[in-house]
Amino acid sequence: MTVVEADLLVRDCLLFPMDGREPIRGACLAVRGDRIVYADRPKGAFFRAEEVIDGRGKAVLPGLVNCHTHAPMTLLRGLAEDVPLDVWLREHIWPVEAAMEPDDIYWGALLACLEMSLTGTTCFSDMYFHEDRVARAVEEAGLRAVLAPGIMDITGPKLGEELLKGAVRLAERYGPSHGGRITVMLGPHAVYTCSRDLLERVKEEADRLGIGIHIHLSETEEEVKKCLSEHGKTPVGYLDELGLLGPRTLAAHCIYLTDEDIRLLAARGAKVAHCPVASAKIGTGVARVPELLSAGVDVGLGTDGPASNNTLDMLETVKFACLLHKAHRRDPTVLKAREALEMATVRAARSLGLSGLVGSLEPGKKADFVVLDLRKASTVPLHDPYAAVVYSARSGAVEHVFVDGEPVVLGGQHVRLRADEVLEKAEEKAAELLSRAGKA
Amino acid sequence: MTVVEADLLVRDCLLFPMDGREPIRGACLAVRGDRIVYADRPKGAFFRAEEVIDGRGKAVLPGLVNCHTHAPMTLLRGLAEDVPLDVWLREHIWPVEAAMEPDDIYWGALLACLEMSLTGTTCFSDMYFHEDRVARAVEEAGLRAVLAPGIMDITGPKLGEELLKGAVRLAERYGPSHGGRITVMLGPHAVYTCSRDLLERVKEEADRLGIGIHIHLSETEEEVKKCLSEHGKTPVGYLDELGLLGPRTLAAHCIYLTDEDIRLLAARGAKVAHCPVASAKIGTGVARVPELLSAGVDVGLGTDGPASNNTLDMLETVKFACLLHKAHRRDPTVLKAREALEMATVRAARSLGLSGLVGSLEPGKKADFVVLDLRKASTVPLHDPYAAVVYSARSGAVEHVFVDGEPVVLGGQHVRLRADEVLEKAEEKAAELLSRAGKA
Repeated sequence: MTVVEADLLVRDCLLFPMDGREPIRGACLAVRGDRIVYADRPKGAFFRAEEVIDGRGKAVLPGLVNCHTHAPMTLLRGLAEDVPLDVWLREHIWPVEAAMEPDDIYWGALLACLEMSLTGTTCFSDMYFHEDRVARAVEEAGLRAVLAPGIMDITGPKLGEELLKGAVRLAERYGPSHGGRITVMLGPHAVYTCSRDLLERVKEEADRLGIGIHIHLSETEEEVKKCLSEHGKTPVGYLDELGLLGPRTLAAHCIYLTDEDIRLLAARGAKVAHCPVASAKIGTGVARVPELLSAGVDVGLGTDGPASNNTLDMLETVKFACLLHKAHRRDPTVLKAREALEMATVRAARSLGLSGLVGSLEPGKKADFVVLDLRKASTVPLHDPYAAVVYSARSGAVEHVFVDGEPVVLGGQHVRLRADEVLEKAEEKAAELLSRAGKA
Repeated sequence: MTVVEADLLVRDCLLFPMDGREPIRGACLAVRGDRIVYADRPKGAFFRAEEVIDGRGKAVLPGLVNCHTHAPMTLLRGLAEDVPLDVWLREHIWPVEAAMEPDDIYWGALLACLEMSLTGTTCFSDMYFHEDRVARAVEEAGLRAVLAPGIMDITGPKLGEELLKGAVRLAERYGPSHGGRITVMLGPHAVYTCSRDLLERVKEEADRLGIGIHIHLSETEEEVKKCLSEHGKTPVGYLDELGLLGPRTLAAHCIYLTDEDIRLLAARGAKVAHCPVASAKIGTGVARVPELLSAGVDVGLGTDGPASNNTLDMLETVKFACLLHKAHRRDPTVLKAREALEMATVRAARSLGLSGLVGSLEPGKKADFVVLDLRKASTVPLHDPYAAVVYSARSGAVEHVFVDGEPVVLGGQHVRLRADEVLEKAEEKAAELLSRAGKA
């Protein structure tokens, strides 16, 4: 008889391995240290575990992975609504961002980490300024993150070099030898906010450090037009010309793509972060996700910043992704529940270069997982596991969340952060920030 | 000094009156018996109340109104997913519905009432068979409902007369003298499932009883094509020709409308139930809601049946409505947060002919309201009340729900239904039903 020694065992659950296997009823998930040691039906194995969670009526999923956000923007959530994109940015967001201080970044990110934890996200990919403060929040919250310090040189090369230097410093601090839950990418903001020189410098440094690049790409028609007129190429083509389009490139949005762009993204093995909620809300358009998936591009889902979403709720994003593409194509067979859930787990992990570690529940992977309570009015009866999780379960069903085998959320409560303190401080910081920016 | 005598007082809350006034901070909602007696800033009034709820950090909204659903279909939720509409109906839904018994209707509806209560819906408009069983569930759950027994004569006039007779009987039982929380409409299913004769009979009976008509209208392109070829008119035009288009007509979906249809709907004062989530999910199309609103048509939001949504969560529907139309028009200014919330409260009540009773929080109206906890990670900081409720708050924020001044949900728990029993029985009924239908 096989004996499985574990620190933690979830037994009798509905397991979503997301490793190619379909959901398994009556399954066991066993964890030893920070790793999964068993994820299957018991098959006669004997489990010796320190702690046991009764999984009856529960779904166990890989921790959700948010591929694109700007976590500290929680402080700006609801600042201006239902206005045109340029008004939103120029009159509201940018003036307030200009007044943001590192401490705002920290509290905004901590609030984001609280929300993400409570809604089942265990890993997120962030792009913002002062990512060292986001890193601190991530460590305190017990989450996993891929942090991309924003880089641009709209005011001249000095700014670009300064931001790049800071980003490289962070990348070196959280390099492979660090071994923790944080990795770093370089975050050139976009082709229209970074000069050709700066993009080439970014590529140089990313190659030297062996790390990825996270960039906004082909988000609006204006961006594409401008790039075509200035560089004679689409943003995707231009990025490829500069050598920045590779398997470690994470391109956020990719809404306006030509067939050739899709072919290029696939050929280079570049990844795409699709943010359906925010793109819908700010009216930028509907990305060609079905074509990207058909071409074999790894598309992960993201919420985008909480100021343009206005949540960091990945279960909401997974459902909305299905709804948006079905509505847009007028075809209910487009973007099936399973595919969308893959885009928030296993495909998302691949998009972030973390597929060796997270994104699926199989022995050897990190024990990042979520326990959902399916004994709820919206998920009974349970005819279809994927449909139950994607179309019916809402974030209120998130009961426990583990990262690296350690509890982050138990019984719907964050075990590492004092939620009340985070809410209060974030509120205080937001009020001070608005007052500094002359918006209060 | 004004003294307000009340049974229940919610004080110091963020009140959403939805009666034309903007959200009010530091407001009081006072209830006496089943009616609201005060809904404003205290303005020096003195409140003497039996029970007091501390409203600090809470939003108080009118109970949400779901304008179109088929509540008992909870039992069929997740039965078949991501398949074409005709496959879904012909191969999955209809065969199982044919095997449904009145007791299935009751338990399915009770499960729906449980879910609606917990997610802040206090009133819903239903169309299904055996609505007497839905009525029983509504009464037990303590909700308010407008029930439309489904009527059709696809198999011949005998079926039509039988269903109409049953509907009339229910309407007489719950007539104006009943004075309870249930009202009845007649529910001719659609122009393609009801003969001209039957529709005329429905109108006759509705006029005689002084009640409304709830019908699916212009939901698919096929329906419009068929109607044009058979009757030489669009479904809206055809309904008008038969005299069925009036201020007491609630037309669900209205996705494929001509400009003339919109003009007719507005001219006749007909109401529209818009179900964005289900229509997206089954790929039927995007209704011309902005044009309907501009034309002055009262459009209320609905979830549609839980088998095609797959929730009955109106907060989700409100957000999704905004996202869908903004994405569809590529315009963030379309369908603003306030407008969408109106479509789930005051406009929805108008759509159901209940605007004298519910849909807004003002003295004299029934005390149907929801208390949302906004001290949550997704709703802090609170820069914009409408955005907080529509874009950030999820149904997990629903704390208390009152109908007719009586508690239905307190602290997130249903106080009238034993949730565990409802889940268990619904599960059992669904399993038996599938087995009877040869689907288990």
